This record gives sequence, structure tokens and C-alpha cells, in this order.
Amino acid sequence: KKYSVCILENRIFFLFTVTPVGFIGLGNMGTPMAKNLLRNGYPVIATDVFPESCKELQDTGAQVVDSPADVAEKADRIITMLPSSPNVIEVYTGPNGILKKVKKGTLLIDSSTIDPAVSREMAVAAEKMGAVFMDAPVSGGVGAASMAKLTFMVGGVEEEYNAAQELLTCMGANVVYCGQVGTGQAAKICNNMLLAIGMIGTAETMNLGIRLGLDPKLLAKILNMSSGRCWSSDTYNPVPGVMEGVPSANNYQGGFGTTLMAKDLGLAQNTATNTKTPIPLGSLAHQIYRVMCSRGYANKDFSSVFQFLREEEGQ
Amino acid sequence: KKYSVCILENRIFFLFTVTPVGFIGLGNMGTPMAKNLLRNGYPVIATDVFPESCKELQDTGAQVVDSPADVAEKADRIITMLPSSPNVIEVYTGPNGILKKVKKGTLLIDSSTIDPAVSREMAVAAEKMGAVFMDAPVSGGVGAASMAKLTFMVGGVEEEYNAAQELLTCMGANVVYCGQVGTGQAAKICNNMLLAIGMIGTAETMNLGIRLGLDPKLLAKILNMSSGRCWSSDTYNPVPGVMEGVPSANNYQGGFGTTLMAKDLGLAQNTATNTKTPIPLGSLAHQIYRVMCSRGYANKDFSSVFQFLREEEGQ
Amino acid sequence: KKYSVCILENRIFFLFTVTPVGFIGLGNMGTPMAKNLLRNGYPVIATDVFPESCKELQDTGAQVVDSPADVAEKADRIITMLPSSPNVIEVYTGPNGILKKVKKGTLLIDSSTIDPAVSREMAVAAEKMGAVFMDAPVSGGVGAASMAKLTFMVGGVEEEYNAAQELLTCMGANVVYCGQVGTGQAAKICNNMLLAIGMIGTAETMNLGIRLGLDPKLLAKILNMSSGRCWSSDTYNPVPGVMEGVPSANNYQGGFGTTLMAKDLGLAQNTATNTKTPIPLGSLAHQIYRVMCSRGYANKDFSSVFQFLREEEGQ
Amino acid sequence: KKYSVCILENRIFFLFTVTPVGFIGLGNMGTPMAKNLLRNGYPVIATDVFPESCKELQDTGAQVVDSPADVAEKADRIITMLPSSPNVIEVYTGPNGILKKVKKGTLLIDSSTIDPAVSREMAVAAEKMGAVFMDAPVSGGVGAASMAKLTFMVGGVEEEYNAAQELLTCMGANVVYCGQVGTGQAAKICNNMLLAIGMIGTAETMNLGIRLGLDPKLLAKILNMSSGRCWSSDTYNPVPGVMEGVPSANNYQGGFGTTLMAKDLGLAQNTATNTKTPIPLGSLAHQIYRVMCSRGYANKDFSSVFQFLREEEGQ
Repeated sequence: KKYSVCILENRIFFLFTVTPVGFIGLGNMGTPMAKNLLRNGYPVIATDVFPESCKELQDTGAQVVDSPADVAEKADRIITMLPSSPNVIEVYTGPNGILKKVKKGTLLIDSSTIDPAVSREMAVAAEKMGAVFMDAPVSGGVGAASMAKLTFMVGGVEEEYNAAQELLTCMGANVVYCGQVGTGQAAKICNNMLLAIGMIGTAETMNLGIRLGLDPKLLAKILNMSSGRCWSSDTYNPVPGVMEGVPSANNYQGGFGTTLMAKDLGLAQNTATNTKTPIPLGSLAHQIYRVMCSRGYANKDFSSVFQFLREEEGQ
Repeated sequence: KKYSVCILENRIFFLFTVTPVGFIGLGNMGTPMAKNLLRNGYPVIATDVFPESCKELQDTGAQVVDSPADVAEKADRIITMLPSSPNVIEVYTGPNGILKKVKKGTLLIDSSTIDPAVSREMAVAAEKMGAVFMDAPVSGGVGAASMAKLTFMVGGVEEEYNAAQELLTCMGANVVYCGQVGTGQAAKICNNMLLAIGMIGTAETMNLGIRLGLDPKLLAKILNMSSGRCWSSDTYNPVPGVMEGVPSANNYQGGFGTTLMAKDLGLAQNTATNTKTPIPLGSLAHQIYRVMCSRGYANKDFSSVFQFLREEEGQ
Repeated sequence: KKYSVCILENRIFFLFTVTPVGFIGLGNMGTPMAKNLLRNGYPVIATDVFPESCKELQDTGAQVVDSPADVAEKADRIITMLPSSPNVIEVYTGPNGILKKVKKGTLLIDSSTIDPAVSREMAVAAEKMGAVFMDAPVSGGVGAASMAKLTFMVGGVEEEYNAAQELLTCMGANVVYCGQVGTGQAAKICNNMLLAIGMIGTAETMNLGIRLGLDPKLLAKILNMSSGRCWSSDTYNPVPGVMEGVPSANNYQGGFGTTLMAKDLGLAQNTATNTKTPIPLGSLAHQIYRVMCSRGYANKDFSSVFQFLREEEGQ
Repeated sequence: KKYSVCILENRIFFLFTVTPVGFIGLGNMGTPMAKNLLRNGYPVIATDVFPESCKELQDTGAQVVDSPADVAEKADRIITMLPSSPNVIEVYTGPNGILKKVKKGTLLIDSSTIDPAVSREMAVAAEKMGAVFMDAPVSGGVGAASMAKLTFMVGGVEEEYNAAQELLTCMGANVVYCGQVGTGQAAKICNNMLLAIGMIGTAETMNLGIRLGLDPKLLAKILNMSSGRCWSSDTYNPVPGVMEGVPSANNYQGGFGTTLMAKDLGLAQNTATNTKTPIPLGSLAHQIYRVMCSRGYANKDFSSVFQFLREEEGQ
């Protein structure tokens, strides 16, 4: 942050000139993220396609404008947090999109989880307008967003990383530089694919062990001290009764929904297909979450795959 | 250990009567395990179908006899370490098997990795002769066996667990009681199934990330601080150059062979089929290791699945 | 059939000495099969573990006895039709089993669908008693059994095939000799594995096509004139409204139940695991039918996989 | 075809005014297709990105121009036959693309196999220029293209189907109308997905049967008279020695390459992901062909999956 120094009655004052930050996409994640920018003293200029979504942030002190183009007119650092690739394309390159009025030198940070190929397209389009685009998807849910505990995985030109980091550290606990544009998305997608595989694997394994006569808590303990250990077994165990404070202890409410996991696995599948990379377990994990979505598990936490695979009572 | 007390010249002597321990199966694992019993002061009476396998142990001080039945005649605690279910059935119930001459009250500990259903059959057969059978498969390879660092997962009647533990602690660092007969096998099989899933998942994920432009070391670091973390990503990474001292750093030599993993996954599949438990990822992992066995990876470490899935040079 | 000739009042009479045929296992399949033997003039000596199952056949003219051993005492040709491997082992080698009282030269034909390894074991046990064992599993359901339209796939020594064929043609329209003992089972298992793969594949394909805007009848027509054609697409289409007279036209009632298909796929998986044969799609088909069994599809026809995979209404 | 009538020396002449047909994409498939148009009396105006590809067609009588835009200037019926979606997008909407100079009322027929979503995009773009776009992918290879034996699956507005059919019947034996734009692609993709599943399933089944002791010819015969029957088992059997005149009889030369099948399965995967349709076997089939591409099978016929899954000699 740039500042001027001023001496007044023998006391030194640092006067910061903070330029406003634009924020587009005020959903469950975007709103608490933008609030954390406000909390850190950044003026925020925001917009969302749903006017009602803007109300909460406006009450907290943000200035609300009509369109992404209007944001771009007033801010030279803009963060976007949108549901999927088509929304990102619209917000950046649509008729009222950012790029219609973006100023030269503007820093554009997209925290949506989308196809890395779209991130690269946006970067090219931004560069044509003299702006810089970075992808910075997050890991961590609504709770982490509220407590500024998100992890950001950042892709883009390295020279701009410091500028991005300044803003992202207001909203997250970890900011990791991953490489060129799109690698932030790549890291996010890779992590979530391995997460899904580990979760389904843990659910299958726990279910098999229980049916073979093992106590679930004991089995979890054995796995966690052995080579079967993974995040899903030791931190987010899908079997009710094994751990407290996780969705499986609360009928799979809250957490990371099956629909969202299916969406991320769809992205993993797309990038793998496009790069001709074989991902047999990743593909099957995708299909399992897809079937779960159509069998009533869409809104449950993704650890409910344990319940899905378990033999029904009375069969 | 039972002992007599004896007072001699005003000093108390505890005289231990150490009865010999039988050991059947002197392969790569059995021989160092039996040596550790000898090191701990237990006389060992041993046998193996291959006479040459007995030589090494005989030189270390064990008494070698002709058959399992002969071992059973002389020892009332017997450990077996055999390649697969049919060998266990033969050694226990065959014409020269243990149960032909077993003494009442003998403790039989089987450290082979086999189908838990066979363990339960052996326990029933042993009980008919007045003996007690426990399953105690190990995790850890030849190195762990030599250094007495194995983990034993023990199933059987709880009253006999202490007696088993006395012997097993001579050969391993961890001894875990899992429940009734067969649950030791169950725990072992469950762990290895989740291990296989995690390994293939890690290999797919690392390969995908690399093809999307991520540096493998950086990707491993990101996964290991996130929810994608698992033993295969943080302790035994399958990508050459990411970690030292693992098989991937040594052209997949040593470690845990693909054939052995395929065998354990076959056991997992059998128990799942018999208990009607769905294991979609476990089944696919089994099939992948089965294909690898037939495509030249039989004797490489199981982390070579990374190499198997990777695009060939020049394609 | 052997006969004597007799001339009486200038007319030639052929006197057939028809020895009775034993039949063990009077379930949904066994009862109509045994009735067809009676219809063809064979005296039948039958038994079943459930006395009430014997009543219907007794009323049709069969002699009912107490145990398989009793059947073996009176008949030198015996057919067994049982639910699974353990039943076959019990009926042949149990304390009141066939082999306890079997006569030398008796022909034993097992029409149960079981593991070919068990068929081979039974053949060895029978041979020790001087009897001949053949496996002859059937394809076709209860309807085909009633109308003597079953297909028999027969494994066993070729010299005895004619003798077996004489009986089997009374109960079936096709009798195919497959080779040594166990190959009848192998053929049955192979066919049903490919059937399951084709059915799930057809269900996926039809569902995808419908969601892409194709009319299901038109899509079926295109597939059936192209390389996607299979029995499940052209004879037993799983999509309601495409064909008449199939389970999909009747809410998946009747037909071949999901539980039975899961059982046959379990056998396929076991034989593949034991012979180290990779069957990736066969394994996944097994897992899908296994999940369906635990999600309420156990008693529906196996073509209900279309319903299982379809997006739920309102999603 | 429109014509004028003319009477000359008492004989009636029908004077056809055949307007030229544009053809873009002169690869292995496009060249013989365009030749068949010439053979049927249609003047052809053609282009291709590789000038050398145009030579052969030019020698046969076609007029070669520089770009798709040039074709569009001179022809009001244009057929495109291109390798993949990006090529189609370029040829239609690129700087020298068809739509730059297309005349109102032009009929555009795309025979490439691409994502149906791209077909729909092209149709929208064409409509804006007053032209009509139809998708008409083919089944059948280079041989069928030469002999005008292709099957066309056509999607687009029904009123224009007759006009398309007139041209397509010059190049194919079957022309099937599938529905709105994109359904031609959908039908093609669906057929090939089921084909891939049936082929891998047949390969697995034949391999399993052989390892269980069945003669491959006999097993094929049994499957083909039973419910396991499919095009891959009865028309294109993947096991050498079972059938003549198929790629398996010729070391998997010729036929339909593994790379092409992997491409079509990638399209199936994309459309399934986009429409949230679960395709578990289709996904796994895709992954298997993807692995095969990277293990040396890229240029073999897709029935070589039998060889890929088979146990290697000497293992």
C-alpha cells in the first residue's frame, strides 16, 4: 500500500491512499469475501446480476453499481467470484462486461472455479485491452470465506503476483503461486479430484471393514496410522460416529455439496479429455457423484457417498 | 513368561522356562521374523516346504524338522507365514499338517495375508482339536521384518491376545487387536485397498496436473497442505523427482510389488463379493493392477502406476 | 432308451425299461424341469430341503424321498438344480449327500449356476466313487423351463454327453457341448457378463441420446442397424415405450432379477480373480448391480438399470 | 434437380441446371466423398488448408479455390468434412470462413464428427446470415466413403432434409433423419459409445472364457445364439482365429483406429458431462482407449483391446 507521511503536533501520521477494489459476484462465497476487503480498509465497488444480493454488502459500506462495465470504470483492481465458465465469459466479455470499459493496467483476479482453458482465453482477451488477468480459485467453504481462512491457488504472470497477494491475504490464510495463467484452476481441480477419489475410497473401505466385523472407530484408527491414511479418513471421516464436528456427524448437512463436487469432477474430466490424460478412478468418481445427484444426494455433503454405498436396512 | 523362583546365596533368581516357538514358512518375510524370535531368546522349531529355505535359520540356531505336524508335536506356540490361502489350508489341515498332531491349548498365529473366511475355517478346525487360532497379518515389508518394525493386525479370542502379543512384539513395533478371528485380515485388506485407490488416484492427479502445466513438486506441496493429501502423495509420491528414498526415485525398484498389490486387491474383491459390499473404486483399482501385471509391471513397485498411465514419449 | 422286443398275437411290442431319473432341487426352475421329465415318460424320484416344495411334483406322479442319499440309492441318473455353490457342495458331499450312497456308473448332471471350480471339485469327488459328474447350467427363465425351451451348456467327459443329452432335450430346446467339466458354467458366466455389460451400456446410451434430443424409438432403430446393435438394444430394450412384451414395458416386473444378475457377476468376478484375468467393464457392471441391489432394485428386472441411471424427476 | 425442356430435331432434351456444390475438407474421407459428387454429375468447388490435398480432386475435375469464404461465394450448397470441433469453428466463423461470404438460402451440411453443442452454435451463426446449417456425420470408413456406402445421420430443420438427402445419397447408402440440429451428432456419438462398450465387453468375455478352458470359436457361437450377442461378437470378433476378413484376422491392421475411437468417446464424455448424464461404462471405456493410445495401440484397430487385456506371453 502506498502512503504519504505527515508530521502533526510531533506525531507521525502515515496517510494511505487506498484505491477502491471492484468485486463482482456476491453469492454465498463472494459476499463474505468482499466484506473482508471492507474490513481491511479497502473501499469496495460491487455488482451482481441479482440486485437483492447487493443489499447486504451495500449495508456494510460498499458502493453498488449496475454492471461489470461500471465496476471496471471505477476500479483498477477487480475480483470476480462466479458459479461457472459461462458466467465468467459473460462478466468479462459480454455486452456490459468488464472488458468493455476496463482501464489499462487493471488487475483482474478471478476466484471462480472454471475450466483453465477459459481462464487462458480471458487472459488473452484482457491482455488485448492492456489489463492483466489472473486465476485464483479458492479451497475452503462459506465458513472459511467468513473467517478469511480460504486458500487461494494463483495462476498468472509472476510480476503481478505481489499485487494480487496483497488483496488475497485479506480474504485467505494461504496464497500459493502456481505458475502461468490457468495453473491456479489446475491445482484446484487436481486437489478436488484426488479428494473425491479419497472420499469414495474411504467410504468403500469403511463399509467393507464394518461388514467384515471391524469396529468403525478402530478401523479408522488403524488406517490413519497406516498407508491407507488420507484426509477423508483422518479429518473428514464419512462414517457417522467416528468423528465429531464433521458432516457425517450431522446427517451430512453443510460441508461441500455433492453437486459442487460433481461440477469440479466435470471440470477435471474436461481438462483430462482435452489433454488426452487417462484418469480412470477420477472418471469413475465423477460418474458416482453424478449418479448420486440424480438419486437424491444433490444437496448433501459429498461424504454421504458412504450412505449411498451402504446396504439399505432390511435388504 | 512363566518362571520359578529360587534363592541362592541370599540372592533371588527367577528361572524362566521358555518353551520353544514353532515357525512355519521361511520365505523372505518368515526368515527375518523367526530370527527376531531367536534374538529375543526363544528357541525356534521351524520347517518349510523348501529344505534350502531352512538352512539359513538352522545356521542361526533354530531346530529344523520335517513337517508342520512335527512342529506341532514339539511346540505349543506356532507362527505361520505363508504365501496364500491354499498354502495355509495345506499347512494346517493337510496330511502332514499342524492339526494332525497339535497339542491341546496350543496357540496358533497365522501371519499370512489370506481370505478372512479361510482364517475363520482354520479357527473352527483348530478349536475342534482344542487349539486356538489367531490371524495376525503384517504391514511392512522385508526391511520392517528384519528390523522388527512390522505392524501386526490381530484377530481372535481376546483372552489369548496377551499371549500372542508377547511373541509378536519381538517381531514388530505395533500390535493392534482388531476383534474376532478374521478381523486382522479384514483390517489388512481394507488398508491395502484404500492404499491402492490412493496411489492410483495420486498418480492420475499428478499426471493431470503436470499436463496442465503445474510443476510436480509444487503440486505435491499444494495437495499435501489441502484435502487431497494422502499417504501416497505425502510419503510415497509416485512421480520421479518429487521425493527421495522412495521407489519412484529408483526406477520403481524395491518397495511393494504390483503382483502383491493385485493379490491383496483380489482378496478385497472376494470378501466384498461374498459380503455383497459395493466397492466400485476398489474393483477398478484391482483391474488396473491386474492389467499392469500383464503389461510388464508385475515386478515393479506399485507406485509405477504413474508410469503406466503416463503418455508415452513421442505419442 | 434300451428296450426288449416281444411278439404277442402277431403284433410286435417294444418294451422299454426306463430306469428312474433322480431330481434334487424343486424350486421355481427345478419343478417345471422335473415335470417335463415326467411328461417324457421318465419316472422321477425327487427331493428338496423344503418338504412343501415336493408336494406339487408328488401330485404330478413323482416319488418323493427324504434326502439326496436316498435319491442316489434308487436312481442312476440324477439332475440337481440348486441356488448356489454351498448348496451344491452340501447336496453332493454332505452327510446325507448323493455321494454317500451313489452307485458306480451313475450319471450326475448339475444344472445349478455355480463357480466352475466347485463343479470341478464335485467331478473329482464323484469320480472317486465311480460316478460321472457333468455341469449343465441353463439359460432361460421360469417360462422357458415350463415350455422345455431352456438352453443347456454342458461340460464333462465327451463320452457321457449323449447320455446327458437324452435327458436334457426333454427339458430344453438347445443343448450345447462346451468341453471338459466346468466349461458349461464358464459359458453361462461369460454370456451373462457380456449381457450385463450390453444392458448397462444400452441404458447409458439410450439415456444420453434422449437427453441430447433424440427420440428413443428412433435411436433404438439407428443403433440396431449400426455397430451399436446388441441383444439388449434389439430384443430387450430397457427404455419404456420402445418395445412391447419386455419388462421395461411392464414397470420392470418379471424377467431376470437384479439380484440374480449380481450373483452371476459375482461368479464372473471370482473366476476372473482366480485366473488373474482383467475384466474392467465386467467388474464395474458387477458393482453397479450391487449398488442397485442396495438401493431398492433387488427384485426388479435387470433392465431397470435404465431407471437407476436416469435423472430423477424435478432435478 | 431443376431442369428446362428443349425440343430439338423432334427429340426432347431435359436441360438440367446443376448448381455447383462446395466441398471443404479433402482428407481421407472428404476426397472420396467429393469424388462421388463429381461422379453423380455435380460440379464441385473445393478447398482445403493443405494445398496438396486439393491436387487429387482438381485432377478429377473439381475447381479449387483458396478459402471457405471463396467456396461460399460460388456455391449455395456446401459440404464440410473436418477432423474436429476447432476446425469446424474456424471453417465456418473464422476470418476467411464460410459465413463471411455465405449467400442467403445456402444449405450448409457438416459431416464432421464433433460436439453437438458446436453444431448448434454453427446453426445459430448460419441462421443470422440467412443460411441453413445441418449436421450429418457419417458411419463407415474410407472404404465405405469410396464405394458411396456411408450412413449419414442428419440433424436440422425438417424442411431442408430433402435437399440434403439429394446430395447425401450420392455419397452414402443410408441417410437417416434424426431431428433438430445436433441430433445427427448425438446419434453418431451414442452408437460409437455403445460400440466401444460392446467391443471391450466382448474382449473381456472372450479372454475370460478362453482362460476358463473354452474354445474361442465355440464361445463366440454360444454368445451369438444367446443374450450376450452383439455386433462385436457376431460381426467383428476381436479374437484372432474366430472370424475371417476382420482386423483381428490381420494383426489389427486397418479398420477403425483406437485414436479415433478415443476421440469419439471424448465427445460422448463431453456431452454427458454437459447434460449431467451418468455414463459409468462409457466413461471407463473412454479411459481404457485413452490408456491404450498411450501404450502403443494408437494406430491399431479398436478391436485390439483384446490383445491389450490379454495376459502377456510368459507371465
